[in-house]
Amino acid sequence: MHNIKLTLAYDGTDFSGWQMQPGQPTIQGTLIDVLEKLTQHRLMIHAAGRTDAGVHATGQVANFKTHSELSAGEFQRALNALLPHSIRVAAAEEVGPDFHARWDALAKTYRYRIFRGRVVPPFLWRYVQHDPYPLDYAAMAEAARRFEGEHDFASFAASTGSEKDDRERTMTRLIYRSEVLRDAGEESATSAEEWIYVVRGKSFLRYMVRKIMGTLVDVGRGKLRPEDIPKLFEMRDRSKSGPTMPPRGLCLAAVEYADPANSLRNKVLS
Amino acid sequence: MHNIKLTLAYDGTDFSGWQMQPGQPTIQGTLIDVLEKLTQHRLMIHAAGRTDAGVHATGQVANFKTHSELSAGEFQRALNALLPHSIRVAAAEEVGPDFHARWDALAKTYRYRIFRGRVVPPFLWRYVQHDPYPLDYAAMAEAARRFEGEHDFASFAASTGSEKDDRERTMTRLIYRSEVLRDAGEESATSAEEWIYVVRGKSFLRYMVRKIMGTLVDVGRGKLRPEDIPKLFEMRDRSKSGPTMPPRGLCLAAVEYADPANSLRNKVLS
Repeated sequence: MHNIKLTLAYDGTDFSGWQMQPGQPTIQGTLIDVLEKLTQHRLMIHAAGRTDAGVHATGQVANFKTHSELSAGEFQRALNALLPHSIRVAAAEEVGPDFHARWDALAKTYRYRIFRGRVVPPFLWRYVQHDPYPLDYAAMAEAARRFEGEHDFASFAASTGSEKDDRERTMTRLIYRSEVLRDAGEESATSAEEWIYVVRGKSFLRYMVRKIMGTLVDVGRGKLRPEDIPKLFEMRDRSKSGPTMPPRGLCLAAVEYADPANSLRNKVLS
Repeated sequence: MHNIKLTLAYDGTDFSGWQMQPGQPTIQGTLIDVLEKLTQHRLMIHAAGRTDAGVHATGQVANFKTHSELSAGEFQRALNALLPHSIRVAAAEEVGPDFHARWDALAKTYRYRIFRGRVVPPFLWRYVQHDPYPLDYAAMAEAARRFEGEHDFASFAASTGSEKDDRERTMTRLIYRSEVLRDAGEESATSAEEWIYVVRGKSFLRYMVRKIMGTLVDVGRGKLRPEDIPKLFEMRDRSKSGPTMPPRGLCLAAVEYADPANSLRNKVLS
């Protein structure tokens, strides 16, 4: 049995998100279909982040287990030959039998792109949220920093649909970095007309990045102040934070794992 | 009567080119439909370059005449609100009554993007031709320069379908710049994994840029040498030059006109 780790990039515009759903085009479903063609088996593939409909990735990580004797490099080439252009395998490697893309992830980085220019180039509209209106950058930058650290993100989560569940499950999350960039040059690899929100954390609640982004835009418009962020953590009330921003601006940029060379478990197992 | 000049950017992937054709999605047809909604009139709109199916533009120029009292800026905003995201009006201005986007163009610049990396990012596939195989850059750069100047481009033109027409019409064209760039940084606004062919000329024959590009790739592969380019001009034989490259890598980047302030005709008329 081989365990293959894939690094994936995709344009989420035309997909109903990562997770397989009957009758819907999904990233996971598309990969499973193509892997079935290659291996004659219906394999399960797990991703680090189950991105929602319309959300993109440049550094999603997924893994699947197979008896196939294809090497990781052969899987990469064969998958890229059979997958639509909108899903690409950027890298593939064989990993230890216990590696799990989701459970082993130590950190994930998301980016949210806001296009500030007057006209969105036709080559960018799938990947940016257009907001040409006045925004107070300094206030947004200050507010963004307030999300760093360990906080209760109940005010920034999607409802589970059950009040009891919402009350009882832990919504505490650890954020390592939360920053609004502009004129980001090299780091952004994008135009000078963009602002980019970058957030790196151990894990995230559903819609959390898009809710934070909506809150930051409310700060930029003067509807909220940076000092309101700690109060929102205390309130645990989704209705008090900003709106959930549209998916098109959001991209899962990177997933981090322990360096296998330094991983005790990998050492013991290999 | 007002004469409105538009600078257009479009993603040509899902269009059958600029020129209106019944039952086909075209850039011109889409613009005429939207202008009809705005003015209640079916207006004609002329473009500097009638780009083929799948070809993109960042600096196409077009003009239309209208009795509408909407200002150029109002036309820009209204068109951008009604057009699909894949067609954008980057600029609009009112010009003199004699301005014609096609007849008055003094030069056009095209770019052809070749992605040299192993995996095309899902955000780029519509805009680049993928060629990860070895190419002799120095030979291609030298060959590209041989296209500069005034030459008979019969070997680099689409057939008109009539041998007599092909023989009789003039295929002489004047090229100001013909250059293959890599690591183009600022100028290319693209990734380090791309090579870009830039060609600026007074006017072009149909498929000419894509035929030149195919010939340059043949030079890169060693099938042709830079010294063969002058011979190809002499031969006037389409079958001896390289293949017509796919449209997706091609983009009409800019169209130049005489500075209206220095134009005698505009001075006399205004």
